[in-house]
Parts: sequence; structure tokens; C-alpha cells
Amino acid sequence: MAKTYAIILAGGAGTRFWPASRARRPKQLLALAGSGGEPLIAATVRRILPLCPPERILVATGRHLVGETRAVLPDIPEANFLVEPCGRNTAPCIGWAAATIGRGDPDATIMVLPSDHHIGDEDRFRQTLARALAAAHTGAIATVGIAPTRPETGYGYIEMGERIREGVFRVVRFVEKPDPARAAAYAASGRHLWNSGMFFFQPRTMSSAIRAHLPALADGIDRLDRAAERGEEQAELERTFGSLPSVSIDYAVMEKTDGALVVPGDFGWNDIGSWQSAWDLAPKDEAENAAPEWTLLVDARGNLVRDLRSGPEGRIIALVGVRDLALIATDDALLVIPRDRAQDVRSAIDALKARGASDKL
Amino acid sequence: MAKTYAIILAGGAGTRFWPASRARRPKQLLALAGSGGEPLIAATVRRILPLCPPERILVATGRHLVGETRAVLPDIPEANFLVEPCGRNTAPCIGWAAATIGRGDPDATIMVLPSDHHIGDEDRFRQTLARALAAAHTGAIATVGIAPTRPETGYGYIEMGERIREGVFRVVRFVEKPDPARAAAYAASGRHLWNSGMFFFQPRTMSSAIRAHLPALADGIDRLDRAAERGEEQAELERTFGSLPSVSIDYAVMEKTDGALVVPGDFGWNDIGSWQSAWDLAPKDEAENAAPEWTLLVDARGNLVRDLRSGPEGRIIALVGVRDLALIATDDALLVIPRDRAQDVRSAIDALKARGASDKL
Repeated sequence: MAKTYAIILAGGAGTRFWPASRARRPKQLLALAGSGGEPLIAATVRRILPLCPPERILVATGRHLVGETRAVLPDIPEANFLVEPCGRNTAPCIGWAAATIGRGDPDATIMVLPSDHHIGDEDRFRQTLARALAAAHTGAIATVGIAPTRPETGYGYIEMGERIREGVFRVVRFVEKPDPARAAAYAASGRHLWNSGMFFFQPRTMSSAIRAHLPALADGIDRLDRAAERGEEQAELERTFGSLPSVSIDYAVMEKTDGALVVPGDFGWNDIGSWQSAWDLAPKDEAENAAPEWTLLVDARGNLVRDLRSGPEGRIIALVGVRDLALIATDDALLVIPRDRAQDVRSAIDALKARGASDKL
Repeated sequence: MAKTYAIILAGGAGTRFWPASRARRPKQLLALAGSGGEPLIAATVRRILPLCPPERILVATGRHLVGETRAVLPDIPEANFLVEPCGRNTAPCIGWAAATIGRGDPDATIMVLPSDHHIGDEDRFRQTLARALAAAHTGAIATVGIAPTRPETGYGYIEMGERIREGVFRVVRFVEKPDPARAAAYAASGRHLWNSGMFFFQPRTMSSAIRAHLPALADGIDRLDRAAERGEEQAELERTFGSLPSVSIDYAVMEKTDGALVVPGDFGWNDIGSWQSAWDLAPKDEAENAAPEWTLLVDARGNLVRDLRSGPEGRIIALVGVRDLALIATDDALLVIPRDRAQDVRSAIDALKARGASDKL
């Protein structure tokens, strides 16, 4: 039986959760799902341990994040952190990580998982992963698609085709984020799934696909591979990585690959895309407020309060007569925004950049 | 020419500006009028200096406030702070302060002024005070009334009668805070003025009025007076003050006094009754936000931001897409409330009391 490996993608910047998320403390390091204090990436690793032991879990992250990331994943061996010298989107990272695994275990079955999603039903999640891993073991690139629950324009979609076997379908095509009309059609079609960003393959399958569709990346990965065999990977990485094509695996490979498979999943998936999603997931009081227990709430309804400040206990946050706000407090920033405008956090980031307040980003 | 004295009433609790105002930092110690960092009581004293030198300004305050109050009024001699052992409303305080002045200068003309109001036109204010002082010099108790600009139910009213001379009228009656219908009638009548809480009299006039209408207070003040002549005022104050009738000068004396006079005033008076009033008075940007210059405002309109936190510079407050909120930050509390519900700050105070969080009051 082939061994299962995981590549956890943990390089994201995560501006949507400012001021909680920062360049050096992106979303995956935050406990956003309301489930105790577990950072999202720690939950990601914990969830897959029944499928994959820590020594076969690789974490791809950036140099500026590796310290904090290792701190919240104490069971992952130090050598399993693949540190990108700079961000080059997902294709170089996945290609490099897959080659690294393939050098040691050419028969590996690999799953690539985002580090910052929430999964409501972890048993069903693992059953879906196992099915996708089995599909990948046949030599295909497989993915997991989520049955749409709304005409979301913020996700890519996967169109399902022929059923291969129980719970496994051919991919007809990957579709970029649609406009509202097409999103509505997709959500109603029964044939379209949300692209969850999870990919499953053997090392040689991914290697061939990259060679076929993005030869410049394949050449770079070959150089890294040969350098690794000479024990000179780090120097080559510094030389090569920044020149690799910065492109997503979806665009570079998945959209162009014939024979991709998709496994529909239904396990309470939430990519926690904004403070609105964090509120959706959080435990709430009878007035729909998701707030620390000590918050003073007087005729306040539907609010999200998150206090990440350090320092003295016993500080009061009082909301009187306000509705549907998100209030996020950190040591150096305080944000107040209507929950349903949570996407506009980006405007605050833009304003901070315009002001040159890079220490707040 | 009789000398002018002032009694500044500076004992108030000021819960309406929580969390900026506290039991130990009431409203008059805050810079609420948006005019630089000048505490309201410091502005009160500065405004009257052309009429009355510091050595003739008495400040009546509570024991728990005397330290901070003296700190913001460095020019007032220490002996001029009359420290009430406990709060007994305004009548005992004014009676005691008037007797204290009268012992040294029986021919004094005294003005009693609140410590926590805003005056827009200080020249016209002083002209009005001078007129009221002149009226008091004739042996009457005089007051200043403000021409109503709206049917306010939160103030007492003064009904004007016969004109005595230029700008001086007889008082027909004092009226308690009216219901909305009567407030509307008063505001339209042309005969009703807002009671500004300023009173003008000679020591003997006030003494007689208290003797006539509140003999228990007159007896207590006599005891304090005799003790002061023996150099034992402090001990007597401790013994007596808490047993004096706790009642306002308006109710105890003004409403019952025949022959009171009123001087209409029009000098941009604002009693700064709530965060709403503070916003009214504050300088605002083109989107009607009254906020520190460094506040990050993105599509935010009509908000009031006040940051009284100590500690590191450079902390950000970001308001994105919110309207007409008041956000008040102190080291240990943060309040968010719609501006037009500013009166409901009391609800937060009540909730804090119910929670036993007396350190936050």
C-alpha cells in the first residue's frame, strides 16, 4: 500500500482579517473558527493525523512565517518545513514539495491542503480525502469539490462529468470565479462544485503534468531536484525560486489537465473568507452576538467582538444599541466595520498602505 | 464698588461621558468641547478672569476630586478649594460658600457657575455676567436664562415677567423639566428661558433666602460659620455637612424666592449633556467625523472618536463603512454607541453596577 503524504500550504498573507491578521501573523495562525484557541493550521494538521503521521506532513510556508508556524505545529519535524525564499503562488511550491516527496518515496500518494479552512464534520472530511487519495493512486490528479449552497461569485467552480465509480467523477472543466448570473446557474445546475483548493496525486503524475503545461517550472524543479541530490538544495533554492513562474496550480495545471477527477464532498466546509464567516461559525448568544463572555452588551444584536489584546485583564468593551458590527481589537489597532461589509477591510489596508503605515500591515 | 467673587460648582459625577468620565474623573475635568486639551473647568475659570481674579474664585468640589481639580487650576489658591466631605447637592454647598465669602467681605457680589459648560461667545458671556452681577448688587437674586433653540425636555425653564431695565426681567416662576408638549409651548412662547444654573447674589441676600425657605440649612451654615470664627471649621464640617438637607438651590431657594431677576443670555451656551453634544461642538471633517487626525476613516460618516488611552503612540483606530457612531477608548474600557442614543450610556453604567465592576465606574 502506498504511503500518504500531505503538503500544507501555509504561505498566505491574509489581509481579510486585519487587524488580527498581519503580514507576519496570517490567517492560518489565528483561531478564527470559534473552537477554543486552536489556530486554523493546527486544526488542519490535527484533522488529518488519522490518515497521515506527522513525519509525512510537509508544511510549505514563507521565511518570515516559519518561526510562528513551527511554534503552533510542535509535532511536525523541523525538516518538514519547506521554506519558500519568496512567494511565487502555488504551482512552484507544490511542484517543489511533490518532487521532494517523490525523491524519497516515488510511490507516495500526496494530498495538498489549504491551511486555513474550517471543516465542520471531520469524519466525513477524512472519508472524502480517503476517496480522493484512492483516485490519485490510479495515476490521476484528483480534487475535492464542494456542493454549492449559494451562488457564490468568490470561488472557482468545477464542472463534473462522467461518474467513474462511487463518489468519483471526471472533471469536464475548471471555471474561474463567475459573474453573478453564471454563479446562479452553476449553483442550480447540480453539475458544478466549488473548487476547494485540495489536490491529490502521485509525484510522477504532477511532475508530468507540470512538464506538459508549464515546462519552465519543470526545468526549475529539475534543477532543485539535482541540487538536492548533491546536498546543495538550499543554495539552488535561493538562486532559482524567485525566477520560477508565479502562477497558481489551478491555472497552470488543473485547468489544462485531461483526465482530472473530482470527489464531491459535503463536510461543513467553510473557507472563512471574512469576519462575516468568522461570525457565521462562532458560538453566539441569544441576541446573535459572538463576543467574549465579559463584553458589556446592552440592546446590542448580531455583533462580532474579537479582542486579541495582550496586557491587563478586566478591560471592558461595551456595545450599547449597535447592530451587526464587527469590532476587532489588537494591541495596536482597532477596527469597527459592519459585518456585511467585511470584504471592505481591504479598503482599510489600502488606506494604511497609502499612509505608509507598514508596521500596521 | 463691591468686589466680585465666583463659586465654581465642581462636584458632579458625570456618568454621561463614561468611559471617559469616571467617579474620580468627572466631566468638568475632561476636554470635551473640542477646543484643544483644555478641561472644561479650566475654561470656566479662564473665561471669568477679566471679571474676577483667581484669589476671589472659590471651587467647591468633593474630597475624592480635589487633587485632580487643583492640578488643572494651578492659579487658584489652595485655600479657595472648598472640599465637601460628601455630596449634598447644590444648596448646602452654595450656602456654605456664600457664608465663607460673606465673613470676609459682606459687600461681595457673588456669581455661582457650573464648571462643565461650554460657552461659544466669551465676550457676550462676560457682558451677560456683568449685567447679572449688577442686578445682584441691588439686593436681588439674579440668574441667567438662555433663549431656547429647541423644545428641550431635559432642562428647567424660567418664565420671564416685567422688564426692570435694559436686559433685566422679573422672574414669574421657575418650571421643572417639562413634558414634550409643554416644552414645545415654552420654546415658542418668547417668555421662557432655559435655566442655566448660574446664580448671582450678595451674601446677605442668599443667607436670608435660605433662612426663609430652608431653615435647617440656615442653622447648619450658622454652625459652620461660628466654627470658622473659632478656627474649627474643618471639624464642624465633618460633623455637620452630611446632615445638611441634600437639595438643589433651584428647588430649595430659587423656586420659592419672590423678586428674583433674570438676565437673558445668548452666547453659544451648551451644557454638553452627552457625547452627542460633544460631537455637536467638535471640529469635524468634510464627512462630519469628529475624530483624531490619525483615525483611519473609510466611507465613515458622522462619527465621534475619542481616544483617551495612555501608552504607545501610533495605535490605529479604523472605522470602515460606519455611520453616526460614538467610539470612546480609555485604557480600561471601550464604548461603541450610536450618537443619537448617547443618553443610553447610563444603561452601560447600570450594567456595570449590576456586574459589580465598580472599578470601571
